Amino acid sequence: MNPNDQAILIIAASEIDANLYYATKFLAPDAFVFALIQGKKHLLMSDLEVDRAKNQSSVDFVHSTSKLGQDYHKKYNRKASYLDLIEEFLKNYKVENIQVPGNFPIEFADPLRARGFKIEFKRDPFFEERTVKSPKEIKAIEQAIRHVEVAVAKAIGTIKKSVPRRGKLYYSGEILTSEKIKKIINLSLMENGCIASHSIVACGAHAVDPHDQGSGPLFANQSIIMDIFPRDAESRYFADFTRTVVKGTASKKLKAMYAAVAEGQEIAYRTLKEGVDASEVHLAIHKRFEDLGFKTGVMNGRMQGFFHGTGHGLGLDIHEDPRVSFSKNIMKAGHVVTVEPGLYYEDAGGVRLEDVVVIEKKGCRNLTKFPRVLEI
Amino acid sequence: MNPNDQAILIIAASEIDANLYYATKFLAPDAFVFALIQGKKHLLMSDLEVDRAKNQSSVDFVHSTSKLGQDYHKKYNRKASYLDLIEEFLKNYKVENIQVPGNFPIEFADPLRARGFKIEFKRDPFFEERTVKSPKEIKAIEQAIRHVEVAVAKAIGTIKKSVPRRGKLYYSGEILTSEKIKKIINLSLMENGCIASHSIVACGAHAVDPHDQGSGPLFANQSIIMDIFPRDAESRYFADFTRTVVKGTASKKLKAMYAAVAEGQEIAYRTLKEGVDASEVHLAIHKRFEDLGFKTGVMNGRMQGFFHGTGHGLGLDIHEDPRVSFSKNIMKAGHVVTVEPGLYYEDAGGVRLEDVVVIEKKGCRNLTKFPRVLEI
Repeated sequence: MNPNDQAILIIAASEIDANLYYATKFLAPDAFVFALIQGKKHLLMSDLEVDRAKNQSSVDFVHSTSKLGQDYHKKYNRKASYLDLIEEFLKNYKVENIQVPGNFPIEFADPLRARGFKIEFKRDPFFEERTVKSPKEIKAIEQAIRHVEVAVAKAIGTIKKSVPRRGKLYYSGEILTSEKIKKIINLSLMENGCIASHSIVACGAHAVDPHDQGSGPLFANQSIIMDIFPRDAESRYFADFTRTVVKGTASKKLKAMYAAVAEGQEIAYRTLKEGVDASEVHLAIHKRFEDLGFKTGVMNGRMQGFFHGTGHGLGLDIHEDPRVSFSKNIMKAGHVVTVEPGLYYEDAGGVRLEDVVVIEKKGCRNLTKFPRVLEI
Repeated sequence: MNPNDQAILIIAASEIDANLYYATKFLAPDAFVFALIQGKKHLLMSDLEVDRAKNQSSVDFVHSTSKLGQDYHKKYNRKASYLDLIEEFLKNYKVENIQVPGNFPIEFADPLRARGFKIEFKRDPFFEERTVKSPKEIKAIEQAIRHVEVAVAKAIGTIKKSVPRRGKLYYSGEILTSEKIKKIINLSLMENGCIASHSIVACGAHAVDPHDQGSGPLFANQSIIMDIFPRDAESRYFADFTRTVVKGTASKKLKAMYAAVAEGQEIAYRTLKEGVDASEVHLAIHKRFEDLGFKTGVMNGRMQGFFHGTGHGLGLDIHEDPRVSFSKNIMKAGHVVTVEPGLYYEDAGGVRLEDVVVIEKKGCRNLTKFPRVLEI
């Protein structure tokens, strides 16, 4: 973690900064200071958080900024600013060289450099070991996926029971909407302690845009993409899960797209393992789609085909390293990545299927158990 | 927004960066580039987001990074890195001087400076106008508060109906826990489209730490702090709300603390208005608590008394400018702030009450309607 006598410094709110939470196991809504100096972890905490940090964090020392402020006043006979406190703290520990993550804020980098500290940044993965999941972390991700599967089973049950009338789906006499399905899913997740900040339930034209959250009526004979990615509030780990269904009959093109996407997943399952460059897997899927006649590019003024990555790392962040995309990334045992190829065409709709796999020495293990069925 | 020909540059994910969402009204999970140049707003978007950005954002120009990459390749006959694209884009618009927010990442600041751009940061409030809420924004916050009030009413109803047995509360024959009350609250919020990432339901010793989320059994005759702060998923605005209740009989000290905290709120309601320095309001509450015998400081090795701010701005972030604390902050009409004094003592428990007010020319208006009752 700490070569060449460089200290590590993070100043962030751990509720949104996964590196900081990973390093401290302490969750707080406002920014605080974390430093790793000579192998020891330090926190600088306000009166509001200092006692909780002592009880809950996994660090070696929790310093009170109030106490540091009093010491500063005694020594220099003036009130310390927040930056004064950080400078004094670092100097007390003889820190000169600092490594920070890529997202380290300029409002701290500039003034600390002006005070003589040498600061270098390191891009993510800042803590390399965060990309390699422990059995406990894999269990946390699996648990979150189980909860999504329960939620999506309920949603699919509702769609199954719906009836088409002039193209639109009806359930219990009312139009079945994207919003209603999202509520079924999100409430089920919440029942199981998972928080879905966004869920995608996108039908027809909406499903052609991979990040459209979907809204309004659901239609018969059109694809409905459900992409659900909640965080387990207890473990802080994410699940990520996508299925595409059609209530009624899928068009010939949609069926062919679905078969291609499912085959794309199989290519990944067959080839992902330790030592493999993930970009080759992504390219192989791309090539297979092209061979099957599914081109990618701007058509009719918009992106169509397969225009996102095959997958991404999953953990304390919903999107984290390593990526399975056009960029070179050598897979290691313990990497947990999504496998989510998709195809999107204006004249047919969207199809995406997403499971989560853990990379192993000789292959990969699928953590997702949910069946793939297009027509329901 | 843009003095001295400085361009504004933000590179962040708008799902977690409220300044970026405020400027673009476009929500995306991964970082993208926003620039304000000569009064025009620009986005640089990947293939995945470019079409959605065109449809959903409130900017003047949406540029495709793929297209910029092709142009770059034609011009220089080599593949562009992400930084190459940003540099080329800024140079095409003759940008030299750039203003960025305080949280601008060092991983972009350093290399852009190395390429000759002059970068200065501005601390929050980056967009001053974000602190002054429009009637529409105030309505969004009020709406979220209404949803919290419904949720907390359900929770209090459950606690009311519980029965004490050997000190612990029971409901329908089972121990009533913090977790159960949180679930009632969070499910009710989700029913109304609000997402609570954390909710505090802290009883007894847990309530003495203001940010302890609470866990385990709820007890009779001890204070239960419920601090609920969901985001409305549709509007993106937060509510923030706290009530403290006792099932059974509160101790004499707890009653006195509750009366003092309620009086602290009244001090704020009487004095907050345009032109007032919020730190004077905070100090007045502090002084009143001291006069009533409620001291603040380290006692028995931990912080006790009133050791957090009186309030904070509320909007697209849960904690934003302006603060109502020891720092000087002149109130403006349209500021929306919480009023949440609290008192915490190991020998009595914790009490916090929190409403949200909007600052007006001649006073302030309370957006929270929920009654204050200690014993239920």
